[in-house]
Amino acid sequence: MAHGGGGGADLMACKQEEDVENKAAWLLGIKTLKIQPYHLPPLGPLDVKVRIKALGICGSDVHHFKTMRCASFVVKKPMVIGHECAGIIEEVGSEVKSLAVGDRVALEPGISCRRCNLCKQGRYNLCPEMKFFGSPPTNGSLANKVVHPANLCFKLPDNVSLEEGAMCEPLSVGVHACRRAQIGPETNVLIMGAGPIGLITLLASRAFGAPRVVIVDVDDRRLSIAKNLGADEIIHVSTNIQDVDEEVIKIQNAMGSGIDVSFDCVGYNKTMTTALNATQSGGKVCLIGLALTEMTVPLTPSAAREVDVIGIFRYRNTWPLCIEFLKTGKIDVKPLITHRFRFSQEEVEQAFETSAGGGSAIKVMFSL
Amino acid sequence: MAHGGGGGADLMACKQEEDVENKAAWLLGIKTLKIQPYHLPPLGPLDVKVRIKALGICGSDVHHFKTMRCASFVVKKPMVIGHECAGIIEEVGSEVKSLAVGDRVALEPGISCRRCNLCKQGRYNLCPEMKFFGSPPTNGSLANKVVHPANLCFKLPDNVSLEEGAMCEPLSVGVHACRRAQIGPETNVLIMGAGPIGLITLLASRAFGAPRVVIVDVDDRRLSIAKNLGADEIIHVSTNIQDVDEEVIKIQNAMGSGIDVSFDCVGYNKTMTTALNATQSGGKVCLIGLALTEMTVPLTPSAAREVDVIGIFRYRNTWPLCIEFLKTGKIDVKPLITHRFRFSQEEVEQAFETSAGGGSAIKVMFSL
Amino acid sequence: MAHGGGGGADLMACKQEEDVENKAAWLLGIKTLKIQPYHLPPLGPLDVKVRIKALGICGSDVHHFKTMRCASFVVKKPMVIGHECAGIIEEVGSEVKSLAVGDRVALEPGISCRRCNLCKQGRYNLCPEMKFFGSPPTNGSLANKVVHPANLCFKLPDNVSLEEGAMCEPLSVGVHACRRAQIGPETNVLIMGAGPIGLITLLASRAFGAPRVVIVDVDDRRLSIAKNLGADEIIHVSTNIQDVDEEVIKIQNAMGSGIDVSFDCVGYNKTMTTALNATQSGGKVCLIGLALTEMTVPLTPSAAREVDVIGIFRYRNTWPLCIEFLKTGKIDVKPLITHRFRFSQEEVEQAFETSAGGGSAIKVMFSL
Amino acid sequence: MAHGGGGGADLMACKQEEDVENKAAWLLGIKTLKIQPYHLPPLGPLDVKVRIKALGICGSDVHHFKTMRCASFVVKKPMVIGHECAGIIEEVGSEVKSLAVGDRVALEPGISCRRCNLCKQGRYNLCPEMKFFGSPPTNGSLANKVVHPANLCFKLPDNVSLEEGAMCEPLSVGVHACRRAQIGPETNVLIMGAGPIGLITLLASRAFGAPRVVIVDVDDRRLSIAKNLGADEIIHVSTNIQDVDEEVIKIQNAMGSGIDVSFDCVGYNKTMTTALNATQSGGKVCLIGLALTEMTVPLTPSAAREVDVIGIFRYRNTWPLCIEFLKTGKIDVKPLITHRFRFSQEEVEQAFETSAGGGSAIKVMFSL
Repeated sequence: MAHGGGGGADLMACKQEEDVENKAAWLLGIKTLKIQPYHLPPLGPLDVKVRIKALGICGSDVHHFKTMRCASFVVKKPMVIGHECAGIIEEVGSEVKSLAVGDRVALEPGISCRRCNLCKQGRYNLCPEMKFFGSPPTNGSLANKVVHPANLCFKLPDNVSLEEGAMCEPLSVGVHACRRAQIGPETNVLIMGAGPIGLITLLASRAFGAPRVVIVDVDDRRLSIAKNLGADEIIHVSTNIQDVDEEVIKIQNAMGSGIDVSFDCVGYNKTMTTALNATQSGGKVCLIGLALTEMTVPLTPSAAREVDVIGIFRYRNTWPLCIEFLKTGKIDVKPLITHRFRFSQEEVEQAFETSAGGGSAIKVMFSL
Repeated sequence: MAHGGGGGADLMACKQEEDVENKAAWLLGIKTLKIQPYHLPPLGPLDVKVRIKALGICGSDVHHFKTMRCASFVVKKPMVIGHECAGIIEEVGSEVKSLAVGDRVALEPGISCRRCNLCKQGRYNLCPEMKFFGSPPTNGSLANKVVHPANLCFKLPDNVSLEEGAMCEPLSVGVHACRRAQIGPETNVLIMGAGPIGLITLLASRAFGAPRVVIVDVDDRRLSIAKNLGADEIIHVSTNIQDVDEEVIKIQNAMGSGIDVSFDCVGYNKTMTTALNATQSGGKVCLIGLALTEMTVPLTPSAAREVDVIGIFRYRNTWPLCIEFLKTGKIDVKPLITHRFRFSQEEVEQAFETSAGGGSAIKVMFSL
Repeated sequence: MAHGGGGGADLMACKQEEDVENKAAWLLGIKTLKIQPYHLPPLGPLDVKVRIKALGICGSDVHHFKTMRCASFVVKKPMVIGHECAGIIEEVGSEVKSLAVGDRVALEPGISCRRCNLCKQGRYNLCPEMKFFGSPPTNGSLANKVVHPANLCFKLPDNVSLEEGAMCEPLSVGVHACRRAQIGPETNVLIMGAGPIGLITLLASRAFGAPRVVIVDVDDRRLSIAKNLGADEIIHVSTNIQDVDEEVIKIQNAMGSGIDVSFDCVGYNKTMTTALNATQSGGKVCLIGLALTEMTVPLTPSAAREVDVIGIFRYRNTWPLCIEFLKTGKIDVKPLITHRFRFSQEEVEQAFETSAGGGSAIKVMFSL
Repeated sequence: MAHGGGGGADLMACKQEEDVENKAAWLLGIKTLKIQPYHLPPLGPLDVKVRIKALGICGSDVHHFKTMRCASFVVKKPMVIGHECAGIIEEVGSEVKSLAVGDRVALEPGISCRRCNLCKQGRYNLCPEMKFFGSPPTNGSLANKVVHPANLCFKLPDNVSLEEGAMCEPLSVGVHACRRAQIGPETNVLIMGAGPIGLITLLASRAFGAPRVVIVDVDDRRLSIAKNLGADEIIHVSTNIQDVDEEVIKIQNAMGSGIDVSFDCVGYNKTMTTALNATQSGGKVCLIGLALTEMTVPLTPSAAREVDVIGIFRYRNTWPLCIEFLKTGKIDVKPLITHRFRFSQEEVEQAFETSAGGGSAIKVMFSL
């Protein structure tokens, strides 16, 4: 125990006290979050205890909040919610050398088994035994404190705030997508959707050197944010699938040269159809957004132009690069943080409702 | 002119005679093929003239024969049909060094521009200015003689017949797919469809070292051919989309370990859905068959397991490897040649009808 | 403890007894091996205890035996030697599900940290905290029993013997080299050196589909073994560096077409010079053998032909593929096992002397 | 002929006149350049005629000038020198559609055969039949006019000068090196040598997103230029090979984290030894500079850390990206142009002497 303590009895008392003081936001039912005590697991030799200071709400958290499920993951018993977080180290395990009490860190939320074939190959995001903050049945991190492996906690430089640290999680999705799609200074990028993931992907594409980024949405307000964040061209489109051909031409004209990679950050038939048709022969469409469980798309003709479809699931090994981007200013995530709430029973559900409401909310952040 | 000739007048006579003697199968309308004279273009310094000896009928030829179109290519004026061919060099251009009169060669049917960006990058199969035998408006090679660039004519070893040489073309599709999907000794392969392309892909997968290949079809006769050609397991499936889940389990059990790459050699909703669901996380689905112009598939959930979709369009730079496979016996294409016809007005339409009829016909071959 | 036991005292007695019975070959000084008791570390929840049944002697073991060092690794205190091994599971940790008592397994000898950047990227063979059997200061596995992580023990099929299982270790070097060099059905391979690693690389190249393999050595006996193992051509060369140009021509003629990948399994100036000069533009030279700590080679002109040099250090994630190769007979390692010794004080040093002596010895194996 | 002309006789006269007026710098012997008439080859249907306006002197030109040879290329008869150039289109071949008279273009100097295996694979820089401006026996482009394939002439945007256009050639070397070494936002870069190629590689690394670039030289003036061009750290080193260990530590400390890719832009034993030792496990050393024909380096230990050596020969398909970098200002090559000369008999040898003299000269440019 970092804060010492004397004999065994004192230690026990201390532990009790600590457990009592640690609280977390428990998802108890649809739209029902209660801040209640959260007894932490013991600190292993390679773990750290982190006092969470900032936590952002993700679309998947909102799904859990509204429906008690997200994709195939179902919340079957009370679960601590949340996973985009940063905090301050309060205690380090006996064998931890890389971190010290007081260090400000961003947390990578998923613990892979490190032993299966996919982990050994470095594709640990696909590990079938992944334990991921706030993905049932694993408790999340909207809590005063969590215990986490030291190797998944990344020290923040002085010029990166804890809130920015929490943003490493959504940013990681964009970074992983840019890596898989091999974005670089020769890659003209189309982004379908200017929501949080679309905007993050815009920032990541820029940071990877994409010379030209065109972004498409149905919402002018979101498009105008995208423009401010650095999109070269913004294109307003309809939700009508019959407009695809016309809109593809508009998009291609706006790009001015061939589209090498399209990111579909939405995941509807229309967005994917647009992406597949707009991308030039030999290019790639990266599917990040996941609105549908089944899609109807011109897969065959696009495949005939060798436009590959690349799937994106979370991320792997992205925190160091995200922190580098934030430290050097290559990426500024601060404009994405539109709302802030306190970690209190009064505000916790309100925060999730705000995030769920869309509208002007891009990223809703808790300050703890 | 290789066969010499005396003065200008003789030469002219000779040319006339030659032009008269050269005949080709012209597609004049739906299911209407006429063997008529075919005046060849002049022989360029880097060209050769080839006397065609063997030519196989491809599914796309059948499409042209039956509908005067294939995908977006429409036959608007009489066109010589055919593109899977091999023959004997009759004349070589003034700068050709790699080939000599009398050489037996297999012909790669597509002439790319060699100057565009895609050509420069080595992805010449995607060249927008491709001129491809028998793909409108370019004349094909079901003719006594054709003129073709020397660099697209590949010398056959003594132990590879001209018919086998003609089979390099369909084999190239399987080889290109195996290259793009990176088939090797660690890649467990599922093949959807045991038609000509499925069977070719089976042979190619084996030659690339796939340790285990499972093949699926609705037709027991085709499956039994696949078994004879070396499939580890054959699975009979229905055409009912509601059977997918059950069939995926059957397929996965037959494989015994994770499926790394699936080739969809058919291109229906059901085949692609099966392929996407059956392939393990981090694997690939290679789309070769092109039955539909739009597909309804579980793209989103599959993409969430990072199962990428790889499109296959023809091939590039595959002839040397195909010939190597045939020469060493790593691949034996002879069992695929089920029917033979002569190049005569009597038999030409009959050959196409036979190929169109499916049934026991896998590869229908002309002997010229 | 798997074999149970009653109260604490009995357990202790049992443990003592077991510890007493476990013996290992301790390297105490130059050419000094003593079989002495070896107290095993406790069995962790994800560990297994393996009764070693077969162990092969590697060149690095011989280095340790003869000089108490190998490359930068120095033996500073008594150390158990050996790392190429297979055995039978005697006990499994509380959380081990993949293995059971009685399973026959091959052991991957290196335990990486699983948490550093290189481990996360899947390049765990380069992990700076690697603990590797018999690489100082980590004890090896020439012992009756060892404790090892379950995920590094790979079950052997019935038709693969324990001796073959032990051969997975040297085979892994060849497999890793073939993977890094991307050997496939289009890769003509040159191998410099027909010693154990050269022969293993020959077998692996063949299993990866290399169409043509030429192997070079100064020793006709070794070359004749290579011929028997499937080399297409064997070339006898001198040790005189001035013969390089002439020998390169001889090698290239023997290949008959361009050399795509050369493996230098020796690591002398002459072998590497030959490899660099013989490999065609755009090819690769894979450096496996490590005779010298500094080499004088035509690096600049070869680099100017974009002949890349690929370094090979051990292997990663290779056991499943090695076992597949052995199971299916794609690789037969039995001819490489030339000598067998018992695990006894009388024979242990003799075995190492035999391996060190070279001559007809390829792989020297202990039966335990 | 683009500028028309009347009957055949006029045309002939026009042609004569034109031929007389076209002059080029002929290399006649060591340090002997004469400006003499240069009869151009006929304009093919896919060619353009370009009036050269800017041409830079390259190290290889200086080699030819000083020794009548460069590497294995020997000047055996009078040859027009020069290859880094840009100009204005004066005439276009009958089938050229992408360019028009008056267009300002940068010229890629090498014409590959477009038909060999390496060309088909997109590695055309390695084409064995390459015809390259000013590389014997192919005439160069230090001439009033040249004829060149249209697909190797790249239109310059309005904000890119002809001098900058000529700089695309040396810049291409850095761009090709960055592509082959896969420089991106995660690649810490070390550059050995701050001469023209080192500085170009610095600019290219930055444009590819390298977060941190450390550059090393023996010359403080060059280092200070590197600092001004954006190097994060500059390190002065000696020419003494015995200082390597100490300097490696200094370099690694200056980087602050692991070095992923080192570019050796010099090609001496010491620079390569430093690069190999300084680069972290799993990294790459890219060999661009070619001072020696044989190198003595710690290849074996470095290979044992899987530090691959990547060779760089010229470039392929780089002009569009270079022009993009210049257009957007991601790269500014103007500071590299230190000296300018006119294309006259008085100044031509002086220009080459200036370039050969080194000193403050980085890039010496002709204005024509």
